[in-house]
Amino acid sequence: MTGNQKRGADMNAFMSAAISEAREGIEKGHGGPFGCIIVKDGRIIGRGHNEVVARRDPTCHGEIMAIRDACGNLSSFDLQGCELYTTAEPCPMCFGAILWANIGKIFYGCNISDSEAIGFRDKLFYETDRSMAQELDIEECLEIFEEYSKKKNRIGY
Amino acid sequence: MTGNQKRGADMNAFMSAAISEAREGIEKGHGGPFGCIIVKDGRIIGRGHNEVVARRDPTCHGEIMAIRDACGNLSSFDLQGCELYTTAEPCPMCFGAILWANIGKIFYGCNISDSEAIGFRDKLFYETDRSMAQELDIEECLEIFEEYSKKKNRIGY
Repeated sequence: MTGNQKRGADMNAFMSAAISEAREGIEKGHGGPFGCIIVKDGRIIGRGHNEVVARRDPTCHGEIMAIRDACGNLSSFDLQGCELYTTAEPCPMCFGAILWANIGKIFYGCNISDSEAIGFRDKLFYETDRSMAQELDIEECLEIFEEYSKKKNRIGY
Repeated sequence: MTGNQKRGADMNAFMSAAISEAREGIEKGHGGPFGCIIVKDGRIIGRGHNEVVARRDPTCHGEIMAIRDACGNLSSFDLQGCELYTTAEPCPMCFGAILWANIGKIFYGCNISDSEAIGFRDKLFYETDRSMAQELDIEECLEIFEEYSKKKNRIGY
């Protein structure tokens, strides 16, 4: 195999692992058909599948579960240098989590139109503006921003 | 007090509770200056603050922590009819989580430009496109979407 062929085979294997995660979730009734794998230096360091229904927690998407698993395994909130493989295009929540985790590359299977076709709202959420959000008590809140800014030895993320 | 005055006083009290959460997080070194309260029928049913640093988990924003707390308290992934009070405008991850939780109204203190001024990347993330995401193995992934669609008694969210 050439280097490119090896890379392609590895990528397919990682997506297969994500699909296996998704299948486990479907079979156990944990939630939607979404599995996710996080890879660093060619090794799987985190995995997860959607558990929204099982955990009664709307934040338990496959990507979030895998990010938490990887961060736990590395004892770090920083997944720089990692790749993420997921059975479906990440929703805005998960895409945001991926950015906060500093993951630089995402490979996804189904797209948000495919997810819409089986009843999920990802596409709608990408089109939702922030008009449901309203400013309140900004002065009081700026005070704690100032307290935080003055704090010594704070750790950025 | 008129009804409007009472409502205004209640809203300020809820934001004060969110500020107290944020302050606790700052004092304990848990993470950024972000606290959040979730309210249903005039009662606080969930609360949380940023714990990204303490838990080494980039998903532990104040809003996510409060949503998890509220869902745990209600034993439901559905927070329809709830309001959310947060010390700062939600990032894309948290805004997505709020939509999945069916929370209809958000009150925030500082805005994303204020967050940028103290070193947080929310604004950048709102401007980031999805070009880091690439399609892979869609056919294999569509198979599990089909498996899920055929599954009986599945619970939507």
